[in-house]
Amino acid sequence: MDSKEFRQEGHRLIDWIAEYLDHADRFPVLSQVRPGEIRNALPDHPPSGGEPFAAIMDDFEQVILPGVTHWNHPRFFAYFPANNSAPSILGELLSAGLGVNAMLWQTSPAATELEQQVMAWLGELIGLPGGFQGSIQDTASTATLCALLCAREKATGFAFNARGPAALDPGRPLRIYCSREAHSSVIKGARIAGFGDENIVTIDVDGARAMDPDDLARKIEADRDAGRRPCCVVATVGTTSTTAIDPLAQIGPVARQHDLWLHVDAALAGSAAILPEKRWILDGIEHADSFVFNPHKWLFVNFDCSAFFVRDPGHLERVMAIDPAYLQTDRDDQVTNFRDWGIQLGRRFRALKVWFVLRSYGSARLREMLAGHIALAGEFAGWLEAAPDWEVMAPVPLNTVCFRYHPTGRNLDEELNAINKGIMDRVNAAGRIYLTHTVLDGRFALRLAVGQTGTQRRHVVEAWEELRRQAASA
Amino acid sequence: MDSKEFRQEGHRLIDWIAEYLDHADRFPVLSQVRPGEIRNALPDHPPSGGEPFAAIMDDFEQVILPGVTHWNHPRFFAYFPANNSAPSILGELLSAGLGVNAMLWQTSPAATELEQQVMAWLGELIGLPGGFQGSIQDTASTATLCALLCAREKATGFAFNARGPAALDPGRPLRIYCSREAHSSVIKGARIAGFGDENIVTIDVDGARAMDPDDLARKIEADRDAGRRPCCVVATVGTTSTTAIDPLAQIGPVARQHDLWLHVDAALAGSAAILPEKRWILDGIEHADSFVFNPHKWLFVNFDCSAFFVRDPGHLERVMAIDPAYLQTDRDDQVTNFRDWGIQLGRRFRALKVWFVLRSYGSARLREMLAGHIALAGEFAGWLEAAPDWEVMAPVPLNTVCFRYHPTGRNLDEELNAINKGIMDRVNAAGRIYLTHTVLDGRFALRLAVGQTGTQRRHVVEAWEELRRQAASA
Repeated sequence: MDSKEFRQEGHRLIDWIAEYLDHADRFPVLSQVRPGEIRNALPDHPPSGGEPFAAIMDDFEQVILPGVTHWNHPRFFAYFPANNSAPSILGELLSAGLGVNAMLWQTSPAATELEQQVMAWLGELIGLPGGFQGSIQDTASTATLCALLCAREKATGFAFNARGPAALDPGRPLRIYCSREAHSSVIKGARIAGFGDENIVTIDVDGARAMDPDDLARKIEADRDAGRRPCCVVATVGTTSTTAIDPLAQIGPVARQHDLWLHVDAALAGSAAILPEKRWILDGIEHADSFVFNPHKWLFVNFDCSAFFVRDPGHLERVMAIDPAYLQTDRDDQVTNFRDWGIQLGRRFRALKVWFVLRSYGSARLREMLAGHIALAGEFAGWLEAAPDWEVMAPVPLNTVCFRYHPTGRNLDEELNAINKGIMDRVNAAGRIYLTHTVLDGRFALRLAVGQTGTQRRHVVEAWEELRRQAASA
Repeated sequence: MDSKEFRQEGHRLIDWIAEYLDHADRFPVLSQVRPGEIRNALPDHPPSGGEPFAAIMDDFEQVILPGVTHWNHPRFFAYFPANNSAPSILGELLSAGLGVNAMLWQTSPAATELEQQVMAWLGELIGLPGGFQGSIQDTASTATLCALLCAREKATGFAFNARGPAALDPGRPLRIYCSREAHSSVIKGARIAGFGDENIVTIDVDGARAMDPDDLARKIEADRDAGRRPCCVVATVGTTSTTAIDPLAQIGPVARQHDLWLHVDAALAGSAAILPEKRWILDGIEHADSFVFNPHKWLFVNFDCSAFFVRDPGHLERVMAIDPAYLQTDRDDQVTNFRDWGIQLGRRFRALKVWFVLRSYGSARLREMLAGHIALAGEFAGWLEAAPDWEVMAPVPLNTVCFRYHPTGRNLDEELNAINKGIMDRVNAAGRIYLTHTVLDGRFALRLAVGQTGTQRRHVVEAWEELRRQAASA
């Protein structure tokens, strides 16, 4: 593809995306294809000769597009959002064009320094206290893994990196504490970092599914008494099931008292802290050693972009750094080399899209949009509460509502679970709405998360209509 | 930014990138800014009001661009290439526009199934034998970490995931074998996965810096005899310093005999196996349990895109899978959920850009381009060998030449190291050429890797001229 063709096809693709974003609601939200259908439509072998770009785009529209689940759709209410925006798409495009690997300061000083600055901006927007420094990671899974490794090496004085399991006395394992509502990435990270499932201590939650700090203190002390080594607390601000908010102001002092690493996973909810009225969710964040939230979820930066903050970058670097001759530069003592702040050596120039989004929208508009999502979720919860046959199943502090259909006289959870699973399946198969579920104390809960860029009040109204329609056919 | 503005600014950005790629050589290859210069030019606070996109792009050109090191530059000879291409940039753009999170089959069936298919195509192009299945990871660092985790859980029957260090008898650590030329990501992965530095056993290399299979066998046996537990061999096809090729055909049977996991890191060199005349580099790959190469290095797919193949996906899934209620779907037993094939839960739709590249170029053209790079590296090595004051310091099987200036009568390595470091610094400061170094047995070696998309013979000629000019001023 020569430069002339790149311009032509690039313009066409920009127009295609513009049209797509304007009318994402013309597609079923959830792809309706069957397993294997897309792959079976693709040739068995790659072509030997080059093909015109128009032919590839035709195949994209004919073969691939029906297999896309539309995360940009204004009636996408599933999981958590991964919202997107025009300036972010252009930022990603420019980053792809530059093709920079931001592993070292030298391999693109601007990539490192813009990243430092947009991370400072993000910290300011969410009210993070001074003393944190940040870098962009791909996902919260990776950031949480970094935090667990920092905790492991803090507890062992870097002996685990050096010696592995021999760094520990047998019978004195390192212990991690999180609530049973913590994200699966905590368990995954603990496995990867070699803690082992049996050393993840599950802390009780209160009625709002937030971590009980008293139970945390009790379990840490019990472990100490038994000769085990408390190492890390992972608190969640905005759990995946119900956006429960673990009370950092109570958890922090417990972690401090026992000299444990405190990691705060606010993957979705962190963005909400740009709103003064929601800043309370981070009360106590000053106790944290590390903190992650995902601008790619709810701050209009396209996936992937996870903002990972640490209080002691020197510790993180010492945990992560490997320094082979072929990566050394003369300025390594004057600059930040982000290769030593995470798992991967290679890094994309993700700061560009964050910069584009923060400047294009400005903080006032970002606040308006998030407040709008939260208001819609609150309104939806109100409709459920006012309806006799529906119930809200957890508090709604942010943008996510857990609920179920509960017709009068049907009180067996098993039966209600089947009814609600049926509603979800029919709603998703109809393709107008996409929502997913969780399970709360054995009860199947529908889950509606408001957060896509194009979602307006009418889309939430449509969701409510569709849910009642499908419930009526139960 | 509304849809009209997105079209307008998008077209402008496409044109900017087209112009940039046509004339990347008008910039210094290596950014010439000083530490802090970019960050100091950026505002301390994010804006409250939105700003016009044109103002942001102006700042990009004025403030950011001087801080970019130009990986697209035809005279970028540093590290390994991360080559780029027009169809790949458009693929990344489309992926950003769709904004899909490909964590589950359901969250975009086409993202999973196209990924399965392009991975099969890549496997076919490099001559991978049947029985491997692949997924796209961000970088080889992550893929190698996955491999080490697979090895750990194979050796312990999944007890390390479950129990952590308690899964091992004290004094019987798990051991990893790699040559001293292996990439730093092996050490990093071993630390992360909890093996510990002291359990990485360094295998001797031969004169070409390839792993010595006899030394491997000896060290495995010595470990066995001492009661340690051999676990994993990491072989490198195309080492970072000199592109040495570890002999898989000899290493494989040793790994098999001792029932060890064999991971093959061919991050750069794997792409060369699309050439029939270079396929020998993967002789013995049939013994591997896992294999990684990076289309983002040398196959015109923009960073990031790492192709990770495993022989037993069921094992990988069992190592990685966590199955919370909120991620379960009805079809989990009929489909592949790539969330269970790697570290991260969230995943970008990277298959699009691979598909665009393979179809736009076609395999014949890809072969031509790689053969061209290899021929240029060979020609450059020939010039060095013919020149009295220069020497080639390692075999050149592929696209990378290690060499130094060695004027007659100067034979102290210490002195030569300083001279060559000086040459590199002056070359890079001049901004016409960018190359980096390695250290071979205490000797500072300049390193020239040919692989950027726009690199032609004249650019290598210019590098040679520049090197001789800067050497003359030593």
